[in-house]
Amino acid sequence: MDQKIGAQSLRFAEAPFIVSSASIVGTKEGQGPLSDEFDMIGADDKFGQDTWEESESALQKEAVTLALGKADMKPEDIRYIFAGDLLGQNIASSFGLMDFDIPIFGLYGACSTCGESLSLAAMCVAAGYADHVVAVTSSHFASAEKQFRFPLEYANQRPLSATWTVTGSGAFVLAGHQEREHLSVTPCVAITGITTGKIVDYGIKDSMNMGAAMAPAAADLIEQNLKDFDRKPEDYDRIITGDLGTVGKEILIRLLKERGFDISNQHEDCGIQIFDDSVQNTGAGGSGCGCSAATLSAHYLKRMERGELKRILFCPTGALLSTVSFNEGQPVPGISHGVVMEYVERKVN
Amino acid sequence: MDQKIGAQSLRFAEAPFIVSSASIVGTKEGQGPLSDEFDMIGADDKFGQDTWEESESALQKEAVTLALGKADMKPEDIRYIFAGDLLGQNIASSFGLMDFDIPIFGLYGACSTCGESLSLAAMCVAAGYADHVVAVTSSHFASAEKQFRFPLEYANQRPLSATWTVTGSGAFVLAGHQEREHLSVTPCVAITGITTGKIVDYGIKDSMNMGAAMAPAAADLIEQNLKDFDRKPEDYDRIITGDLGTVGKEILIRLLKERGFDISNQHEDCGIQIFDDSVQNTGAGGSGCGCSAATLSAHYLKRMERGELKRILFCPTGALLSTVSFNEGQPVPGISHGVVMEYVERKVN
Repeated sequence: MDQKIGAQSLRFAEAPFIVSSASIVGTKEGQGPLSDEFDMIGADDKFGQDTWEESESALQKEAVTLALGKADMKPEDIRYIFAGDLLGQNIASSFGLMDFDIPIFGLYGACSTCGESLSLAAMCVAAGYADHVVAVTSSHFASAEKQFRFPLEYANQRPLSATWTVTGSGAFVLAGHQEREHLSVTPCVAITGITTGKIVDYGIKDSMNMGAAMAPAAADLIEQNLKDFDRKPEDYDRIITGDLGTVGKEILIRLLKERGFDISNQHEDCGIQIFDDSVQNTGAGGSGCGCSAATLSAHYLKRMERGELKRILFCPTGALLSTVSFNEGQPVPGISHGVVMEYVERKVN
Repeated sequence: MDQKIGAQSLRFAEAPFIVSSASIVGTKEGQGPLSDEFDMIGADDKFGQDTWEESESALQKEAVTLALGKADMKPEDIRYIFAGDLLGQNIASSFGLMDFDIPIFGLYGACSTCGESLSLAAMCVAAGYADHVVAVTSSHFASAEKQFRFPLEYANQRPLSATWTVTGSGAFVLAGHQEREHLSVTPCVAITGITTGKIVDYGIKDSMNMGAAMAPAAADLIEQNLKDFDRKPEDYDRIITGDLGTVGKEILIRLLKERGFDISNQHEDCGIQIFDDSVQNTGAGGSGCGCSAATLSAHYLKRMERGELKRILFCPTGALLSTVSFNEGQPVPGISHGVVMEYVERKVN
């Protein structure tokens, strides 16, 4: 019954389920390769709001509403929300979610927050602390540029290593194992384990090359997950990072090869999946804690629900910087939080 | 064995313990009424660092180091850290804690984060996910003024309702019930329950009057805690808010009186305890997520350890704003997270 395994992982004796999930994205993402898979694509990137921050709040609100609808649940059925975003003081989450009137745990793990929120949400329902909880994260290109780089009006040039913050949100309704037979939707994706990340600092100081800053954290996390669960890369159908982009992907695969793990056949990156640089001019790929969340919901969970993927390791990565730490000459440390998801027969036993 | 009670609370069937805690504060706090109770008072407010943000990081690092020392533990004995601060993108925590090399969950609940971190830490060890975890939060007057108000060099005037951000940090080592007999320190304060807060918006728009913005959240949380646990105010020796200050305290007591609960005999506020306005010119009181953390560790836990207080409700409050949300005309919603702590005989049964 002891669920702790290895140095950084938990294996859930009775695995919680993802009951439903939903994705919402902006116009650029809606024109990308995953266009047909998102639940909702904005007519513009303002989502009916006056400011970029309110637009991002609207993304979270819509994603949660959609996910609740698919689960046939109301806000009062949800005991906790685990939520975060990239903005200072998590304002996208606070203002987006307050009308649901649900107890909330605010989280910050930069672009790894989707993994952090799913981890804590799974821990919570697996322990029986709640029947149903929600995990939700978001990012918005315009609010993130304003927060971290330059206002859009400045029209700065971007190096090729730069990623493009995804305008989007993904929300997930989780339920404990014991709830499965009572749900009106029969879930088929279980969260069977998690691996929680440490902060990894390789001394990278280039805020326009986040992939390089985050790849070492992903490498450590994936290696630790494989060791803790005593698995090989091929035990996963996919090992999915959040937003390393093309530059970070190359570094990740090389780092792990040096340590004896070849993940080149299993690895995919949400940031590479969501955009086609040749069409959309998005540089190294998409980023942001909406990127991994929306792509997980729209693309990977759907593939799991169809039984095409049986077991995945989802490990979004975050770059733990602010403009203040960056301008004060601090490096950009990374973190990654891993979530193991497995396909389970839809029929209730 | 079901631990969910009422609408927003958990009662831990086998309550986790606070093994040890530590506090560190700046010079002004060190001259205040609690001077003799803190573990460490800085010689200056830089704590040997070059920037205010690094100084705040140093506070967290020192507080955790001290708490580990008191528990006779090393970083490798700790499975998770639950940490947060007030700065954009939680940089005080990220840079302060990365050298411990411990899996970390980054949290943001503004000045309620100490309650949030203790709640999640308690949930984690009570579920058996870890033997020992750490909860830590901090704030620093100078980094907070730079983040939220004006740089110190600007020398702005402050209204009487304004609070004074505490330079300080408090860290707590928690262990599960089953660990008690294996510890080299015998803990005597158990976390027997938690009440998790919702975001409460009364439309307050004055960022210099945080007490008024946060009092409604504290009122809702305390009322809910009393209902969920079926208790009266006098069932607690103290009901302790984090940083409402004198203005917020008055509002809180009035709001709860209107709802039929008189907490005037039990209520204390860390922000009022930590400073003496007549000596230190700190306005309505101390604030920040270091205020409640340092005061809990230095003052209240020591009183519990001496058996002077048998049961307390600790419910720090946070104001969920950023300079961006504030300048865009958004209100200042509040949140509060409640933690029930009880004195348990020191002798192991």
